[in-house]
Amino acid sequence: MSLLVIGSIGLDTIETPFGRVEDVIGGTAIYCGVTASYFAGVRLVGVVGEDFPREEIAFLQSRNIDLAGLEIKPGKSFRWSGKYHLDLNSRDTLFTHLNVFETFQPVIPEQYRDTPFVFLGNIGPDLQLDVLNQVSHPKLVALDTMNYWIERTPEALHRVLARIDVLLVNDSEARQLAGEPNLVKAAKLIRQMGPKIIIIKKGEHGAVMVSDGQFFCAPAFPLENAFDPTGAGDTFAGGFMGYVAKAGKFDDETLRQAVVYGSAFASFAVEKFSLDRIRDLKEDEVRGRFAEFQSMTRFTRPWE
Amino acid sequence: MSLLVIGSIGLDTIETPFGRVEDVIGGTAIYCGVTASYFAGVRLVGVVGEDFPREEIAFLQSRNIDLAGLEIKPGKSFRWSGKYHLDLNSRDTLFTHLNVFETFQPVIPEQYRDTPFVFLGNIGPDLQLDVLNQVSHPKLVALDTMNYWIERTPEALHRVLARIDVLLVNDSEARQLAGEPNLVKAAKLIRQMGPKIIIIKKGEHGAVMVSDGQFFCAPAFPLENAFDPTGAGDTFAGGFMGYVAKAGKFDDETLRQAVVYGSAFASFAVEKFSLDRIRDLKEDEVRGRFAEFQSMTRFTRPWE
Repeated sequence: MSLLVIGSIGLDTIETPFGRVEDVIGGTAIYCGVTASYFAGVRLVGVVGEDFPREEIAFLQSRNIDLAGLEIKPGKSFRWSGKYHLDLNSRDTLFTHLNVFETFQPVIPEQYRDTPFVFLGNIGPDLQLDVLNQVSHPKLVALDTMNYWIERTPEALHRVLARIDVLLVNDSEARQLAGEPNLVKAAKLIRQMGPKIIIIKKGEHGAVMVSDGQFFCAPAFPLENAFDPTGAGDTFAGGFMGYVAKAGKFDDETLRQAVVYGSAFASFAVEKFSLDRIRDLKEDEVRGRFAEFQSMTRFTRPWE
Repeated sequence: MSLLVIGSIGLDTIETPFGRVEDVIGGTAIYCGVTASYFAGVRLVGVVGEDFPREEIAFLQSRNIDLAGLEIKPGKSFRWSGKYHLDLNSRDTLFTHLNVFETFQPVIPEQYRDTPFVFLGNIGPDLQLDVLNQVSHPKLVALDTMNYWIERTPEALHRVLARIDVLLVNDSEARQLAGEPNLVKAAKLIRQMGPKIIIIKKGEHGAVMVSDGQFFCAPAFPLENAFDPTGAGDTFAGGFMGYVAKAGKFDDETLRQAVVYGSAFASFAVEKFSLDRIRDLKEDEVRGRFAEFQSMTRFTRPWE
């Protein structure tokens, strides 16, 4: 089944301790959409300027991503620049130029309206709700948000939270949203706001999924050469939602596998700059890493 | 098989956001020894003052812990006091009174010298080496250390590291010891210093074991009511080494199960002050929590 992905699309300028790249393709919808395209048909919604590289448009088409919802507007594309510290766990934003993204009013093409799976990337909650209102009877809706919206537009955020199924946030965002330092209690409080499945992303410490009284903990892949963490969270979302859309269901076992696929793709993404590592992964590479997650976590009971 | 445990024994005064206790039993050898006593015969080495509560001595005896190596000296017992912050992830030390611990010169009783499994708790590396020299042909030796010794007595630390099999440290200590921010690289560098099994304790983020090219990642138990983290690391060590001593072997499967037992006992320990939660656990409580770790982490492959 297909997946609708909405979010930022832009050009990033990134400095890490290992190098620097300028104006490389990035943004939530790109990392998420490209990753999800390994599993399911992706319908992209976003906006770019006339300066967006044609070869990257061609690349998205080569991955069978539906671009009917991609608006190309006069002006420049969204641009972001960040510089990572030595341990890659923290970064400084050097600049954010919204450009054509500033006036983004997502319009969902008619042929997207029946999309069964929806990922609402981190944009203003009013826009997220507006998109959701344009989709008829989705089976599963996931949403990402951040401290900016938790602080500035809490009412709009709560309106959209009441309408979604899966919330993806990092641990500090979960604590902030719930106003509760204990993550277990925080997840319970957030479930009362609407989403029944909470996925807490903890970067190098992995991810925790909280659903009905159940926890599922996946580690991050222990990378010797983490290179550029940009887009890791969006890549996780793409692996997670792409796999769920492929499966067409979201029972506990499917959701666990989806978390592992999300973690596996995120671990690939950070091995190189931008999309470079996830442009053309082979099936045996993906299966190999999934299998490594299993061998890293499995153990037997001593009794029985 | 039996386990020799050496480390601090003392009386702790602890403040958490949930309460305060004064002069309660604590210290590495206590948390580790009591936990290990669920699995194996424990031989304790340590020192206390004449003020050490007789009922706690009786409690240790009731758990069949061999106290031939427990010295009771004129003077006061080691005392430590700490105050935890709201999220329990950080604490301030309010005071440390070494008292009889200051001149501790561990002497291993004759009947302890053939102990096959040894845990060298966090004391000066010269003392750790001195203890190790008094044990003949141990099968497996584990050691805990901390930033204090990494900074102040690196040469002595390296002498003892060259002689041990298992190093237990937290993530910041691993990075500091290796001089390397990437944990995977840090673990590899530490393995070159001697210990072939590195266990990195990450508190609420779980534990990672690195052995020959293998990783094993265990989450921390998601506790809604973490209460007092004091002794969690030593309790982990007790569950780990106690189980290994019971098994009498340390193949990959045994070590994985040992990490889970360590994590399970640590999760119990933090549910109440001091030893209160781990004084008298029932077998079905321990098995139940072990099983919960399995259900929190298991997933199947979508193919095959």
